[in-house]
Amino acid sequence: MATISWHKGCVKLIDQTQLPQKLEYIHCRDVKTLWQAIRRLSVRGAPALGVAAALGVLLGIKSFPGNDRKRFVWHVDKISTYLATSRPTAVNLFNVLARMKQVIRCYPEASVTQLKSLLRKEALAIGKEDRRRCRQMGSWGARLVRSGSRLMTVCNAGALATVDYGTALGVMYTAKRQGKKFAVYACETRPLLQGARLTTWELLKAKIDTTLICDNMAATLMRQGKIDAVFTGADRIAANGDTANKIGTYNLAVLARHHQIPFYVVAPESSFDLSIATGQEIPIEERNREEVLGFGGRLTAPQQVKVYNPAFDVTDHALITAIVTEKGIIRPPFKRNIQKTFRD
Amino acid sequence: MATISWHKGCVKLIDQTQLPQKLEYIHCRDVKTLWQAIRRLSVRGAPALGVAAALGVLLGIKSFPGNDRKRFVWHVDKISTYLATSRPTAVNLFNVLARMKQVIRCYPEASVTQLKSLLRKEALAIGKEDRRRCRQMGSWGARLVRSGSRLMTVCNAGALATVDYGTALGVMYTAKRQGKKFAVYACETRPLLQGARLTTWELLKAKIDTTLICDNMAATLMRQGKIDAVFTGADRIAANGDTANKIGTYNLAVLARHHQIPFYVVAPESSFDLSIATGQEIPIEERNREEVLGFGGRLTAPQQVKVYNPAFDVTDHALITAIVTEKGIIRPPFKRNIQKTFRD
Repeated sequence: MATISWHKGCVKLIDQTQLPQKLEYIHCRDVKTLWQAIRRLSVRGAPALGVAAALGVLLGIKSFPGNDRKRFVWHVDKISTYLATSRPTAVNLFNVLARMKQVIRCYPEASVTQLKSLLRKEALAIGKEDRRRCRQMGSWGARLVRSGSRLMTVCNAGALATVDYGTALGVMYTAKRQGKKFAVYACETRPLLQGARLTTWELLKAKIDTTLICDNMAATLMRQGKIDAVFTGADRIAANGDTANKIGTYNLAVLARHHQIPFYVVAPESSFDLSIATGQEIPIEERNREEVLGFGGRLTAPQQVKVYNPAFDVTDHALITAIVTEKGIIRPPFKRNIQKTFRD
Repeated sequence: MATISWHKGCVKLIDQTQLPQKLEYIHCRDVKTLWQAIRRLSVRGAPALGVAAALGVLLGIKSFPGNDRKRFVWHVDKISTYLATSRPTAVNLFNVLARMKQVIRCYPEASVTQLKSLLRKEALAIGKEDRRRCRQMGSWGARLVRSGSRLMTVCNAGALATVDYGTALGVMYTAKRQGKKFAVYACETRPLLQGARLTTWELLKAKIDTTLICDNMAATLMRQGKIDAVFTGADRIAANGDTANKIGTYNLAVLARHHQIPFYVVAPESSFDLSIATGQEIPIEERNREEVLGFGGRLTAPQQVKVYNPAFDVTDHALITAIVTEKGIIRPPFKRNIQKTFRD
C-alpha cells in the first residue's frame, strides 16, 4: 500500500482526511486537484509532500503541447511556483521542486520530449528514494530503541507521511522486525488529530502495542516514569538543528528535557534546509480558525472567539538528543555534524 | 446567574455539557439525579462540587420521615457516602460532606426537625461563602495581574466552576473591574473541552479579550514571549502545596518554568487537603475511553486502540509561584506558609 503513487498518468493518493473510518483513494488528474488535496491535508507529512510535488510537476507537463523548450521551461516554473504555494513549512516540497528544475538546467540541449522523460524519471526516482531512505532511517533509529521501552510520538510520521514505512514510525517498524518489544503512546495531535486518526491506525495494523492519549496527558506520563524516549518527524530542519514539526512537538521536547527523557527527530536529508541558520527563519503556517473551534466537524466553542492556530512549532536544537537520518545518527554539536553528514 | 442553587426543594444547575450551544438548567429533585449530573460533568469544578454535595445532603433529607435521630444520622451518613462516590479527586466534595456531618455532631441534643433546619442553614451558608470567597480570591489575585499582560488558563476555573464568579477567572473579573487591560489565552482542555466550551463563553460574556488555542499550542506562545502569567484552579492541594487540577495543568507548569513565567494556582481553603503530605496521595480519576476516542459522540480514532484518560494531574509545588486563597497569597515555602495561613 503506497500513500502516494503515479498511476496511469494521475497521482493516486490515500485520502487521509477519511481515515481511520474509510480507506479511500483520490485520483488527481491535474495540478489543481493535487494542490487542493495537499491544502486540505488529504496528503500530508513532509516526505510525502516532497513526492507529491514531484508528481505534481508530471501532472502539469503531461499534456504540454508542442516542442518549444523555452515555453516548456517557463511552464515548469509556473507549475512549481503554484505547487509551492500549497503549504509553506515542509521544506521537502521546495527541495524537490528545486531538484526537478535542476534536471532541466542539467540538460540544456534536451528537447521537450526528452525533458518530459527526464522529469518523469526524476520524479519516480524521488519516490523510490523515499522508500529506501525510510528503511535506512529505520535501521539507524532502531539502535536507539531498547527492548522493553515505552516510546512517545506526535502527529503521524509513518507510512502515511511518506510513500510508505515512515520516519519516526519507520524506526518502530524496524525495531519490531528486529524482535524488540516496546509500547507506543500516540499523542492525538489537535486540531486535526493525525495522531489519533493516522498513527494509531498504522501502529495497530503493524500489531504494535499502542495507547492513545490527549496531547495534554504527555507530561503526566513522563512524570510517572512511563516514557523512555520520544520520536518525532520533522517538516524543516535548519543548519543549526532547530526543527519545525507539527504543533505540540516543541511542547514534548520541553517536557522531555524536564524529565530527562531522550528526544529524537527522524528525518531524511530532504527535510533539511541548510540555507537558513536557525529555526527563527522557518515560515510557520497558520491554518483556519474552524479547525480549533470544533472537533470532528462539530462546533464546540463560541463562533465569535478569537483563535490562534499555528500548524507547526520550532524545537530548539538544544532540546534535541539526536537527529536520525538515512546517513546516520547526528548528535550535537548539530551545526558542525549536520554539515559533516551531508557534505560527504 | 448562579451555576448551582437551591430552588424550591430541588437543586437547580446549569447543564454544562450543553454549553456553549445552549444555556439549559437541570432540576435535581433527588440525590441520584444529582449524583448522575456530577458524574457526567453537568456540574463540575471543585468549589461547585462542594456546594453540590451540600445541597445533595438537603435533597436526601427533605423527605426523611419520622423523628428518630439515630436513623436520621445513619441516613445522612448513607447519603454522604453515596455522594462521595460521584467523583474522587476534588477534595471540596469530601470537605463539605465532613462539614455537614460535623453540624450533626455539634448538636447532640437536636431533634430531626431541628437537624434538618441546621443542615439547610449550613448548606446555604456554604453556597454564600463560596460567592464571598471567590471575590476575596479575586481581590488578592488581581494584584498579580499587571495592565497590558497576557494570561493563560486551562479548563474552566470560572463562574461555572463555583456558585458564580470563579477562582482563576475570578481574578480576571476583578482585574477587569479595576480597569486593567489584559488578554487571555484559553487552552481548549481535551478531552471534554471545558476551556473551549466554558471558559471562552464566560470570558466573552465579560468582554475580556480571549483567544482559544489547542492545548499543544501553549508552549509555542510561551516561547514567543506572549504569555506573562498562568492562572489555574485546583481540585486538591496537599499540605506541601502539590496541586491536583485538570489534566494538562502540570504540562503548563513545566512549560511555564522552562520559559520563566509565573504560575499561579487560585483556590479556596476548601480545596486544601492538609491530611495528606504530598500530591502522590491524591487519587486521580480515570474516565472512560470514549472521551479520548472522539468527541460529542463522534468517533475519531480506531475503536480498538488502548486509551489512557486521567482526568487530572498533579503539579509539583516547586513549579508553583504562588497560591491565591481567600486569606491571601501563599508563597514558598508552601508547607510552612499553608499551615500558617489556615491556622489563624
